[in-house]
Amino acid sequence: MEIINGAEMSAKILAQIKDKLASSADKPKLEIVFIGNNSASQVYVAKKKEAGEACGIEVNVTHRLEATTQEVKDIILKAAQDDSVNGIILQLPAPNIDLEQVLPLIPLHKDVDGLNPLTLGRLWHNNIELIPATVKAIIKVMEYIATKQGLELQPFLSGKRVLIINRSLIIGKPLAALLINYDATVSIAHSKSGNLNEMVRISDIVISGTGQQGIFDIRECKKDTILIDAGFSRQGDKVYGDIDLDADLNVSYLSPVPNGIGPIGVACLLENTLQTFLDQSKL
Amino acid sequence: MEIINGAEMSAKILAQIKDKLASSADKPKLEIVFIGNNSASQVYVAKKKEAGEACGIEVNVTHRLEATTQEVKDIILKAAQDDSVNGIILQLPAPNIDLEQVLPLIPLHKDVDGLNPLTLGRLWHNNIELIPATVKAIIKVMEYIATKQGLELQPFLSGKRVLIINRSLIIGKPLAALLINYDATVSIAHSKSGNLNEMVRISDIVISGTGQQGIFDIRECKKDTILIDAGFSRQGDKVYGDIDLDADLNVSYLSPVPNGIGPIGVACLLENTLQTFLDQSKL
Repeated sequence: MEIINGAEMSAKILAQIKDKLASSADKPKLEIVFIGNNSASQVYVAKKKEAGEACGIEVNVTHRLEATTQEVKDIILKAAQDDSVNGIILQLPAPNIDLEQVLPLIPLHKDVDGLNPLTLGRLWHNNIELIPATVKAIIKVMEYIATKQGLELQPFLSGKRVLIINRSLIIGKPLAALLINYDATVSIAHSKSGNLNEMVRISDIVISGTGQQGIFDIRECKKDTILIDAGFSRQGDKVYGDIDLDADLNVSYLSPVPNGIGPIGVACLLENTLQTFLDQSKL
Repeated sequence: MEIINGAEMSAKILAQIKDKLASSADKPKLEIVFIGNNSASQVYVAKKKEAGEACGIEVNVTHRLEATTQEVKDIILKAAQDDSVNGIILQLPAPNIDLEQVLPLIPLHKDVDGLNPLTLGRLWHNNIELIPATVKAIIKVMEYIATKQGLELQPFLSGKRVLIINRSLIIGKPLAALLINYDATVSIAHSKSGNLNEMVRISDIVISGTGQQGIFDIRECKKDTILIDAGFSRQGDKVYGDIDLDADLNVSYLSPVPNGIGPIGVACLLENTLQTFLDQSKL
């Protein structure tokens, strides 16, 4: 079994961003709107800011412990109109905020996390300009494995059975759109799915992002299964994913938590911000 | 096994539409843009026109054997601006037309087939106003079966494994969005999926819309499987679905072809047109 090294993949992406910005007079800017005090969100936001500093992207965090939907709309509209802002995300969950009113205000060319419903609709129409950050991280891990097998992503994924245990707007839903486009057979499961073992047993790739360890029995995985952990939970200072790393794992590849999709996703968010910055400079 | 009577369900919906329009001075109008001469499309368009006449909805077909993308854009823009048009569909497939340019021109409040990418994105965001016609037909069949079991659709579908063998813009992609919203576990398969039997074997509901008989072995279905045929092919004058009706079927419900989703979908398209007509009258 090979364990994906997320820290290394992330560092490479950040170094490439830094290189590309070395000769730039302007700095790309990412606006993060963070409402509430969800502890996982605090960790994510801090990591995004830190990684931005490391590679030359300004990350501005607008944090409110509480806010009305109108206040969030105003913050996003201001960033939407500000030419110095290249990417905008609303850190989810955003408690008590009506997303239906807020998310459509993120302009498509600044939608680095794919939160605008039109971005998601276009993904399902195979009209892809920016791949939402966390999905991009998962795709990059798959590309890495495909390359090891001497394949492009498309033939690697064609006909493969992929089980996604997550139906969120930032993982399950956009990821399914992309994988179907790559000719994978895609199943989307979630907390109400009940016993998942029968599905795990026939899957070539399992992506689990529930924040709940033991949501399925990893012993049910096939020997050549690719297992990608996109879960996140904390107990004290320790971070856990959905897959118990101490278990007797008998799969071909594992992208673990910590040190897997998390840091790669942060780097992809900044890579997307660089992309929108470069696209806007061309205009 | 109970066989769903699509003609009967369709007739009921059309009768309800006729009733609701009995006292109306104005007639709702559906614009169908039909490019090319696909033989299945010819059948569908004729059935839509005929059903519209039966229930009091005007169906205007703009048919071109060949057209440029710009011509189709112009036709749709004209219908979009015409207050007397309540619903617009582009009959798919539309050969040599760049859908990416055309489909976003269908206004959301006239998008009775769910073709605008924003409509699909909103479905994935659980923001549902109009359910695309064919998907609505499939949902109505599920509702009928749920009611027979004394259940609302949500508890009926919650945790059920649904296999959709279709990844089109009018069936697989929007249907998956809705079913996930109803807490079903959803798998999307297609022509590149290879052997489907392992998936069929663990599915509670199978919806097959490939136009290809024998895409899976129906003997693999569980005894209590619900089988919904959304396929369509023709040999001479005879119409076939994906399920061989002469086979020894051992399932609980079958929505067959012909006389299943086809006529119900036509009625749902007109029901959607009625809905947009009534919504617009309220303005």
